[in-house]
Amino acid sequence: MATPPLSTAAQTFGERVRAQRHELGLSQEQLADECGLHWTFVGQVERGRRNISLHNILKLADALKIDPAELVRGLQAPSNE
Amino acid sequence: MATPPLSTAAQTFGERVRAQRHELGLSQEQLADECGLHWTFVGQVERGRRNISLHNILKLADALKIDPAELVRGLQAPSNE
Repeated sequence: MATPPLSTAAQTFGERVRAQRHELGLSQEQLADECGLHWTFVGQVERGRRNISLHNILKLADALKIDPAELVRGLQAPSNE
Repeated sequence: MATPPLSTAAQTFGERVRAQRHELGLSQEQLADECGLHWTFVGQVERGRRNISLHNILKLADALKIDPAELVRGLQAPSNE
């Protein structure tokens, strides 16, 4: 069974990364190469398994050619989920 | 001499937190209490000294009563500053 996401916010963030990656027709490896992250890290982010840092949010947004605001808009802090 | 910020992005993020905190008339201690973070952490974030995590970005945005998108809009990934 897949390990659950860290939070609803991390899950939604990951879904947005995956959707935009698909929009650009990139594989996880290609996205990872573009932003200097490991492809397994990108996979974990997409599955909501990472409490990602600001700098990595910005690297992903750059490589995904979107404003970082679009990745975090409306997300709620985990209330101790 | 104050230690320099980690990056332009971390510096701008911190300036936005400070501006919104002042807008709400909160001290660093009050903001820290609202979001369950330590006040020294809030001070470091405001000085651009923290590569803050997604969950802490969301906690700050909640306490500052703004959408997290407003804290990261337009920030650029550090190019290895």
